[in-house]
Amino acid sequence: MSQKPASSDKKSINGFESMDEYSPDEDWSSEHAQRELEQRLRRPSVTRKWQQSSHTGPSITRQYLADTFKDAIDLEEVPRGVVRQAQQLNDYVFPSHRLRQTLADESKIPLILVACGSFSPITYLHLRMFEMALDTIHEQTNMELVAGYFSPVNDHYKKPGLAPAFHRVRMCELACERTSSWLMVDAWESLQTSYTCTARVLDHFNEEINEKLGGIRLKDGTQRKCKIMLLAGGDLIESMGEPGLWADTDLHHILGNYGCVIVERTGTDVWAFLLAHDILFAYRGNILVIKQLIYNDISSTKVRLFIRRGMSIRYLLPNSVIQYIEKHGLYRDAEPVKAILSK
Amino acid sequence: MSQKPASSDKKSINGFESMDEYSPDEDWSSEHAQRELEQRLRRPSVTRKWQQSSHTGPSITRQYLADTFKDAIDLEEVPRGVVRQAQQLNDYVFPSHRLRQTLADESKIPLILVACGSFSPITYLHLRMFEMALDTIHEQTNMELVAGYFSPVNDHYKKPGLAPAFHRVRMCELACERTSSWLMVDAWESLQTSYTCTARVLDHFNEEINEKLGGIRLKDGTQRKCKIMLLAGGDLIESMGEPGLWADTDLHHILGNYGCVIVERTGTDVWAFLLAHDILFAYRGNILVIKQLIYNDISSTKVRLFIRRGMSIRYLLPNSVIQYIEKHGLYRDAEPVKAILSK
Repeated sequence: MSQKPASSDKKSINGFESMDEYSPDEDWSSEHAQRELEQRLRRPSVTRKWQQSSHTGPSITRQYLADTFKDAIDLEEVPRGVVRQAQQLNDYVFPSHRLRQTLADESKIPLILVACGSFSPITYLHLRMFEMALDTIHEQTNMELVAGYFSPVNDHYKKPGLAPAFHRVRMCELACERTSSWLMVDAWESLQTSYTCTARVLDHFNEEINEKLGGIRLKDGTQRKCKIMLLAGGDLIESMGEPGLWADTDLHHILGNYGCVIVERTGTDVWAFLLAHDILFAYRGNILVIKQLIYNDISSTKVRLFIRRGMSIRYLLPNSVIQYIEKHGLYRDAEPVKAILSK
Repeated sequence: MSQKPASSDKKSINGFESMDEYSPDEDWSSEHAQRELEQRLRRPSVTRKWQQSSHTGPSITRQYLADTFKDAIDLEEVPRGVVRQAQQLNDYVFPSHRLRQTLADESKIPLILVACGSFSPITYLHLRMFEMALDTIHEQTNMELVAGYFSPVNDHYKKPGLAPAFHRVRMCELACERTSSWLMVDAWESLQTSYTCTARVLDHFNEEINEKLGGIRLKDGTQRKCKIMLLAGGDLIESMGEPGLWADTDLHHILGNYGCVIVERTGTDVWAFLLAHDILFAYRGNILVIKQLIYNDISSTKVRLFIRRGMSIRYLLPNSVIQYIEKHGLYRDAEPVKAILSK
């Protein structure tokens, strides 16, 4: 890795310059490497500095993102830094480096999408769901997507097959930062000391974006409240219909105050399902169903099974994530095969 | 792009050093850029030099590849050169920079897989098929895969929706070089002055690998004949059963002298199909059927339709290919929508 030319603090607040150049050979996940990185960049914490900077004045990054999500340059091909999430709750700062903080079309309602799940590991299908949502929201609604977040569940969820939350957050980071120009991962849920229900996670996003940041800016300097919706596969909405799995108060809170964007699997009928459930049907206006035009059943479960069997997982998830899994020896013998298959 | 330090000709013959550093912002596809590149690297043709070098002595690349395909470093993340194919038949040299020229396990039969098709554009499914084949061949056969090739059909095929062969070869190049350590694209078929049947394409590979190179080397210096098989989706084998579409002599030639690796789509039954056709059944010992464990119906047709509709194609094909499509404005209005849908 070549030495970075020293840059002044003021210069380094824009997106691309302030990020550390990432080399797959270096272990930035270790405490030692983190310290070394901080020293090299001469600031207390990359994440923090980054976060602070994103709330002040315009930057190249923001201007660039404001143009359009879709014409993004190929991030997968350019070695650029990965914005790292805090590893402890004390260091936590809400990631907003890719949040489009000024609305492009003021006739629209700003929207962020939050995907809750294990992401053990994150796959192309998880990433693709956001792209499908982007197209549908642009086409069919009066909302403008200003960011997308992955919120990996914490280790207290105790689902078999979960890699430690630390690794799952890192893998989501690599996937978002390397392959997308608008997706981020938020470590808040993963850092909580007990299992945190989805309703509370959405409250956290509301607090960060609408209460602390004050919403999304308009050209006249005022701010507009950002809508927050849960992005999920059809299995999530079906689980909402199972008795006892979700508290009714949580369903009312999630669907009433926020809403759901559901990616429907080919061959299933989410609307028929909604029709059969009182609470879900009552909030149907807050549920956006997206047809999956290209069927794909990549699942983290299958990926873990392939890894265990020594089979190739290439082209099912980003290469950077595959490399991370190999480097850290994840999923080699984490859970009994029977537990994987019965899911 | 920073100036490359001048390197001696001798040093530059190994794989990684001799490749030009690729920058997505530079248009290497133009004649001007090609000349500039050649001048910079002080040799008549990058491709040629490259090809010549791969036939002499050991190199870092070959050593690296010989270790194993699966533990490859993450090529998607590292900006490295893309080995370019010749643009004219006169300049054509068979690409062998990733061909494993020495057999690792001498109890096995060396094998190369050739995928024939339009690849307009290449998708993750095309790439994934090779990975599925790699696993199955390793698990179920006594063959050792020494390379995989894409052979894009030439423009005389006149199928609607085809981008010019030049672009299709470039996209396959980007996909192979950036995301894989063992896949290559061969421009020979694309450079022919008339439509070239699959049997003839396989003959070409046989000629290059078994006649010109003499086969794959063993440790004692002798060479072993390399088996050549066609890699295809289930639709190809089904087309072989359609009357009049393939000449019987071609089927005998392809299945008798070479063979087929067929990736079976979920829900179809290739064996039942083989049973019903005399020629196919006769050569069943030369046909390897691979179960598609993760269903995926990405198709180039759908990708083209998405592009035309302004929809996201991210995570369906490599970012470098998406960027190439955007840069060259491919598939925006190349064919009537009806033609796409009826396929």
